[in-house]
Amino acid sequence: MASAYLQVIAHYFAKPGTGDAIVKPLTELAAATRAEPKNLYYEFFRSPVDPDHFVILEQYSDADGLAVHRDTPHFQRLGFGTIIPLLDRREVTSHMVPGDAA
Amino acid sequence: MASAYLQVIAHYFAKPGTGDAIVKPLTELAAATRAEPKNLYYEFFRSPVDPDHFVILEQYSDADGLAVHRDTPHFQRLGFGTIIPLLDRREVTSHMVPGDAA
Repeated sequence: MASAYLQVIAHYFAKPGTGDAIVKPLTELAAATRAEPKNLYYEFFRSPVDPDHFVILEQYSDADGLAVHRDTPHFQRLGFGTIIPLLDRREVTSHMVPGDAA
Repeated sequence: MASAYLQVIAHYFAKPGTGDAIVKPLTELAAATRAEPKNLYYEFFRSPVDPDHFVILEQYSDADGLAVHRDTPHFQRLGFGTIIPLLDRREVTSHMVPGDAA
């Protein structure tokens, strides 16, 4: 049986026409995040229909994994410092997935 | 307070180098799925790192929404008939998100 985990689905909407600019910092952020002790999964994807619309799928082993992630130096620098200023908006949902539901 | 919903995260891995071929049928499938009575959300995304890796995010108002979706004529034709034969593999997880957790 799989263990419970925190599932995060983050939608990032780049300012119109500027989606290309966040691919490189997101790639760097992904690599750094995967090294966090509580991170189980981190990948990002882009809409073929709207290339300014990105989705980041994240999984953490604990309910506080996302909060810990946001406090890391790499998220402070790449997330708050570089990527988020390039966005129009973001929508982030997170919820625990029970161990027997995955 | 938001209502509970079924969250589906589907990873589709096209056969190496053939990801472009599933964009058009996925676009058609998305439009048809959004017209299902129980569907709340259907969008698909593509990895900039691995263009053969797609993610479909789906939400349904009921726990049986995914099963109903798979029984529709459009999923039988486009999903089973067109898209899935182009894949190496797919990984689909689904879980209910409680009404107060979204």
